[in-house]
Amino acid sequence: MKKHNFSAGPAILPAPVLKEAGKAAVNYQGMGLSLLELSHRGPEFTAIIEEANALMKEIIGLPEGYQTLWLSGGASTQFFMAPMNLLNAGETAAYADTGTWANKAIKEAKGFGNVQVVASSKEQNYNFIPKGYKIPRDAKYLHLTSNNTIFGTQLHKFPKSPVPIVCDMSSDFLSRPFDPTQFGLIYAGAQKNLGPAGVTVVIVREDLLGTVQRHLPSMLDYRTFIQENSLYNTPPVFPIYVSLLTLRWIKKNGGLKGMQRRNRTKAAVLYQEIDRNPLFKGTTAVEDRSLMNVCFVMEEKYASLEKEFLKETEANGMVGLKGHRSVGGFRASIYNAMPKSSVQALADLMADFAKRKM
Amino acid sequence: MKKHNFSAGPAILPAPVLKEAGKAAVNYQGMGLSLLELSHRGPEFTAIIEEANALMKEIIGLPEGYQTLWLSGGASTQFFMAPMNLLNAGETAAYADTGTWANKAIKEAKGFGNVQVVASSKEQNYNFIPKGYKIPRDAKYLHLTSNNTIFGTQLHKFPKSPVPIVCDMSSDFLSRPFDPTQFGLIYAGAQKNLGPAGVTVVIVREDLLGTVQRHLPSMLDYRTFIQENSLYNTPPVFPIYVSLLTLRWIKKNGGLKGMQRRNRTKAAVLYQEIDRNPLFKGTTAVEDRSLMNVCFVMEEKYASLEKEFLKETEANGMVGLKGHRSVGGFRASIYNAMPKSSVQALADLMADFAKRKM
Repeated sequence: MKKHNFSAGPAILPAPVLKEAGKAAVNYQGMGLSLLELSHRGPEFTAIIEEANALMKEIIGLPEGYQTLWLSGGASTQFFMAPMNLLNAGETAAYADTGTWANKAIKEAKGFGNVQVVASSKEQNYNFIPKGYKIPRDAKYLHLTSNNTIFGTQLHKFPKSPVPIVCDMSSDFLSRPFDPTQFGLIYAGAQKNLGPAGVTVVIVREDLLGTVQRHLPSMLDYRTFIQENSLYNTPPVFPIYVSLLTLRWIKKNGGLKGMQRRNRTKAAVLYQEIDRNPLFKGTTAVEDRSLMNVCFVMEEKYASLEKEFLKETEANGMVGLKGHRSVGGFRASIYNAMPKSSVQALADLMADFAKRKM
Repeated sequence: MKKHNFSAGPAILPAPVLKEAGKAAVNYQGMGLSLLELSHRGPEFTAIIEEANALMKEIIGLPEGYQTLWLSGGASTQFFMAPMNLLNAGETAAYADTGTWANKAIKEAKGFGNVQVVASSKEQNYNFIPKGYKIPRDAKYLHLTSNNTIFGTQLHKFPKSPVPIVCDMSSDFLSRPFDPTQFGLIYAGAQKNLGPAGVTVVIVREDLLGTVQRHLPSMLDYRTFIQENSLYNTPPVFPIYVSLLTLRWIKKNGGLKGMQRRNRTKAAVLYQEIDRNPLFKGTTAVEDRSLMNVCFVMEEKYASLEKEFLKETEANGMVGLKGHRSVGGFRASIYNAMPKSSVQALADLMADFAKRKM
């Protein structure tokens, strides 16, 4: 029986993608070789990465001047690699502190220049997205985290910024349309909406590169990946292939608008149940609720029922619903690939549980 | 029909490993979830990485004080990360220049300290392994490349070194027994003998770390990976799992001694044919011939037959035999997983081709 996978990441991928990935790992396109043992310089992988780049450009609507790069090391590597490539010692970058990952990005950036934290929701355990803050015109860039996986908040409207935005989109990448021209650099670990762990997408406005003075090792210089079409060294072949399969699936299912419709519908099912159900409550400001990670707890007086409810979800084939220790309670991660039926199953169980317990 | 895969890397993996990997990508251990969508913090992946570490320790015979780390970014990332972690500005590291990859390691190390090239075979197009060179006692380490994938040479005996050896073992890792205590740090991209592209193994003598003064981003500090058991951030889950499957296969097939026997037998079949066959000749010093990458060309007067022979290999289901442009001719990569039958098929074709052409 296929499980309902609510994991925060690595997370659910579309069922046809997984099926195709499994076939490729044994015999790629019937050629008598596994994709895992094919040269990254051969015609098969060249076709894969070229199609992935073209689809990324088409699906997002990337204008000229933006490059898609396939790296590894996760968003955690981008936390330092972005400032290393964009920020000279002595220059300042503005950061919004909206959660655990934003906080790590801030910590790593401090190794390379001045960091000005222009907004923070830390005092309220990151349960909202700060708005209306001032963005200094002399900052090199503004760093944002578009979706906060742990706390269940999401930036529904990017601020107007006088400086290029550098954005960690790991946990809501390709979940909705966005205007790429606001961004100088976008990065996303694949393991939420795009593919398996092991590949990180970077989309960069090429004209921002080449302005830092420090020594950059070849593998830490975005220009290396631009010049070599992400093939300076052996890239993570299989994770890139699975990402391509997901890109095809996104295109087939209405592109980013289609994803947004799916995601809005699914999130509505769950948030409506949370708001309606007397046992549960959401943990974040309503206007900042994430369409990807739905965080909720039990009302104080029912808190003793949390373990029991978690057990029931597991007994009903639902996995990954335990909330992160920073928030407690429950977290339902309902990325692009999550079918509405799984979300409905959870909402139904919540309703049924309340009926039995009230 | 399964092809004979002579690719230099990503390269052949054991058939049972590929079969198991394909199953895991669809439904891991019948649990109703793909390994690609499982949390790296869950019990399944915890078991995978713990078994992989234990098997690595057992198979190599790692003594206390050595740690196995699972990173990404390939050997190309280790080219700078090793000196970044081991070499202070102003200190000197000794490097042996034995091929293209050694050369890149030298280039990247220069960004972090003084590099003294203590030996080089560059003048003779890297067709031998320099020996008997002096290793300065005040060097922080000696960097070696144990097998030169492009040129087909291999270090059959590591030099006695007064300083710890840092070794790029990417293309002959786990192909033979070795004494780990000579080494301060070993690194290997998985995509030759261990797994698919996307994971890099580092084995490090822990007491060498923490002596550099420079700022190290968390993701570039080996100590981060030691402290967090390679789980500081989301690791490349699937490539690590496939590596575990290969480690199990190595253990089952006699460990490193078993691999060495297999590899010696296979290489002998091919080198004997090269030496016997009037059309072909090896490109390297005989005593430095690699058991992993067998490089050969046609004798000058038959050079016009190269294309025809390459076509015949392809017609016989053999892929990846075209030599690297730096050497020309042919390169048969015959890593651990390559069956003797494939090597025999190539040797037989060479013999048959000569019979027809002479």
